[in-house]
Amino acid sequence: MSHHKGEHLLPLTARKMGIDTHQELTIYLRSDSHVCYSEGFSALSRVQVEAGNRVIIATLHIVNNDALLDQQIGFSDSAWNRMALEEGDHVCVYHPKPLESLSHVRAKVFGHRLTTDQINGIVQDIAAGLYADVHLAAFITACGHNRLNRREIVDLTRAMIGAGSQLQWPQNIVVDKHCVGGLPGNRTSPILVPILAAAGLTMPKTSSRAITSPAGTADTMETLTEVRLSLQQIRDIVSQHGGCLAWGGSVRLSPTDDLLIRVERALELDSEGQLIASVLSKKIAAGATHVLIDIPVGTTAKVRDSKSAERLSNLLKSVAQDLGLQVRIMVSDGSQPVGRGIGPALEGLDILAVLKNQADAPKDLKNRSAEIAGALLEMAGKADNGEGFKKALAIIESGKAWQKFVDICNAQGGLKQPPVAPYRYNMVAHQHGTVSGINNRLLSQLAKLAGAPADPAAGIVCYAKLGDQVKKGETLLTIHAESPGELDYAVAYLDEHSQLITLS
Amino acid sequence: MSHHKGEHLLPLTARKMGIDTHQELTIYLRSDSHVCYSEGFSALSRVQVEAGNRVIIATLHIVNNDALLDQQIGFSDSAWNRMALEEGDHVCVYHPKPLESLSHVRAKVFGHRLTTDQINGIVQDIAAGLYADVHLAAFITACGHNRLNRREIVDLTRAMIGAGSQLQWPQNIVVDKHCVGGLPGNRTSPILVPILAAAGLTMPKTSSRAITSPAGTADTMETLTEVRLSLQQIRDIVSQHGGCLAWGGSVRLSPTDDLLIRVERALELDSEGQLIASVLSKKIAAGATHVLIDIPVGTTAKVRDSKSAERLSNLLKSVAQDLGLQVRIMVSDGSQPVGRGIGPALEGLDILAVLKNQADAPKDLKNRSAEIAGALLEMAGKADNGEGFKKALAIIESGKAWQKFVDICNAQGGLKQPPVAPYRYNMVAHQHGTVSGINNRLLSQLAKLAGAPADPAAGIVCYAKLGDQVKKGETLLTIHAESPGELDYAVAYLDEHSQLITLS
Repeated sequence: MSHHKGEHLLPLTARKMGIDTHQELTIYLRSDSHVCYSEGFSALSRVQVEAGNRVIIATLHIVNNDALLDQQIGFSDSAWNRMALEEGDHVCVYHPKPLESLSHVRAKVFGHRLTTDQINGIVQDIAAGLYADVHLAAFITACGHNRLNRREIVDLTRAMIGAGSQLQWPQNIVVDKHCVGGLPGNRTSPILVPILAAAGLTMPKTSSRAITSPAGTADTMETLTEVRLSLQQIRDIVSQHGGCLAWGGSVRLSPTDDLLIRVERALELDSEGQLIASVLSKKIAAGATHVLIDIPVGTTAKVRDSKSAERLSNLLKSVAQDLGLQVRIMVSDGSQPVGRGIGPALEGLDILAVLKNQADAPKDLKNRSAEIAGALLEMAGKADNGEGFKKALAIIESGKAWQKFVDICNAQGGLKQPPVAPYRYNMVAHQHGTVSGINNRLLSQLAKLAGAPADPAAGIVCYAKLGDQVKKGETLLTIHAESPGELDYAVAYLDEHSQLITLS
Repeated sequence: MSHHKGEHLLPLTARKMGIDTHQELTIYLRSDSHVCYSEGFSALSRVQVEAGNRVIIATLHIVNNDALLDQQIGFSDSAWNRMALEEGDHVCVYHPKPLESLSHVRAKVFGHRLTTDQINGIVQDIAAGLYADVHLAAFITACGHNRLNRREIVDLTRAMIGAGSQLQWPQNIVVDKHCVGGLPGNRTSPILVPILAAAGLTMPKTSSRAITSPAGTADTMETLTEVRLSLQQIRDIVSQHGGCLAWGGSVRLSPTDDLLIRVERALELDSEGQLIASVLSKKIAAGATHVLIDIPVGTTAKVRDSKSAERLSNLLKSVAQDLGLQVRIMVSDGSQPVGRGIGPALEGLDILAVLKNQADAPKDLKNRSAEIAGALLEMAGKADNGEGFKKALAIIESGKAWQKFVDICNAQGGLKQPPVAPYRYNMVAHQHGTVSGINNRLLSQLAKLAGAPADPAAGIVCYAKLGDQVKKGETLLTIHAESPGELDYAVAYLDEHSQLITLS
């Protein structure tokens, strides 16, 4: 009971600090407070916090001014929400017991194989919010490179599934799709779901919001309909319409994945084992049985050469096999953006154009969507091999995909028209020439500077495609912004980065 | 120049938040501020901050209330101090360029050997404050277990020395001492320095403050004299008197060590390579040529068995050899505290009693100090082998050590009498018996609960020694506290932890 020695202290009074520290649960105490003094807490100490039957372990920041009183304890937004506190609640603090699962992380540092139970212990403690970011970083690093074998990756995937909610479906076949690594505008899911649902398949699609990109599928879909659905709403809508397009954040499918991804990004460390557990745990938790994984390859995409793509494909397939999941890999062109719009509403408009079968719909987005949908139709036995693409195109062109999309959006709360940004700027070609290079990373950055995804109407419409012949004065792209300041800011960036689109 | 795209923004106005985040440099921006919006910064983003020619990379926390205005940027204490800001200074923020040295950390994750240049790059970036704690955690983990070879440990040690200040001495022999792992009351350095200086040796001793223990040598010495010395003061005092007893924190000897140690503690990961680089870099930076390393072994000490002690000894010796440092290892008894006092002033009183040759001086502290001093006298050629202990004892008993201690303290700003705590509580034996166990960890915790080291007079006086025969009613230890509340709190802890001292 040595961790409970604080029980003789008066309880502290809870205060919301209004500081967002994201996943790193943080509490604040005065440096001269009685509890810091007697418990020996100092900046960055890990502290166990209890209120009623709710317990967290948080990182301590010390306040040296009058933002807090002696008997007060401040909470970051994440810590406040996780403890479900109200202003003035009574809270006790303790030294936390050492976490047993951290000894397994240390065992991995020493090169040991982890047992299924040890991996479960680690994932459960991560899900319970007991790991500080430094602990997550140590876990990610210790599992880096090839230090997880196939069995450990399978165990990790299963543990991540078990740590969150799971969806189950009566159908024998439930399809899903994942794209590894961002390609601007590559927003195929809102087109795939209605195609596949119209073909009689089940596709309960949950998507993420952007973390470092100008739009996630959930951001784009939010310009078209409601995406914050409960698990029960997802079950009802998918049962009735065959598909949905929901934000994954509200349903806690594989929630540890979200925690790990943040730290992986900070470290720029992509361990294959954790990437695979991340992708497959989300899909299996959503109830998928057949999954198409798109790996765009290009010099400014996440996977930069076909050799890396192949190694990743092979490991993905073998782990999926052990988990009883059917997976097909599609290695695709990642050399330029897909569609024209980059940003939530602008991508939404591309999606509407494809689904409504408009003559000006971006062909690359339409074809890529039909390829992926075709592959899934073939995997699910809804089309003969080699016939899927044609069948998917036919579902679009018949208007059935559009009708299904309208039904799903109406079930989710109604179909909306995406918002339009009032401020625009055209980048024109300064010479005649052929488009010889488009930098995905700079384009994404430009769209973010224009305000995406926080401003849903902001972003880029990119007209240029590799190989296009352009004339002097022709518009290569248009920046859309919701405020003149952001437009100016994006234009200034563009002026400095003329290599964003290369003509030769 | 992609990291400089913020240069079109108006500068932000600096504000000190009064929040201590220790080494994790932290800045604060409003969620609805223009800069978060247009740069796409979110909670935990890494942000490059520039003011004049001063640059840091800091971790962003987002403020959701009126603690900041739109154009203001808040700073944690560490970020504020490192940028040497004043209230209202103008500050610009950017997306930081990727750190090249992080690619070397990733290379280590992939099992590669690091070159000397790569190790230098990592250490220089750590010293410049460019690593977030998650990056430090990844580096520590990637180097964990046996993943640094002897050459890499040597390079790491040299890089850590080069990243801070260094002291140089005209003497051919400069002695120093290090103790691996805490044993309460084991405060030998303030006794060694005057013995060795009185013997004509040079010992520029810098020590740390407590991080998790009830007292560090610097905390104890601060109850006796001034310990915040500049490099120049250290040079002058050591030149004149042969030794000093300074706080290391004010002179930046191997400053990266302090950053790494904090995160190692949080991870409870002690890589041998980093432990060795930590110890040896501090000593070499202080100019030492001959170092005695004390490794106490005991079930409640840091090193728990002689096998671990031997492995550590061998690696320490081989790395020291490559660095041209003479090292002798002393594996010592770590089964119980040394001396009687635990806490800054109480340990100071023990030191005074030994140096003044008082009849009631704790014999174990006196003997242990004489053993270590004796070993260093032998290493430095000031005593024949086997004669050092006797010679060291003679220097104490002649009063020469005391006179040297007075001279050094006077040179550092004057000798003080340690403060005395007004509130006391005696723990008495409830039965006759023999003292069969003393728990170092619980004793340290008890001293901290009584107020040590923040209250310098607080702590424990432990009269019991292993093997002592005690009578019912005899005092085993006395708690000293500066306030009645802290005394009550420590007494309550004692009541719950009667196994702190075992009688049989």
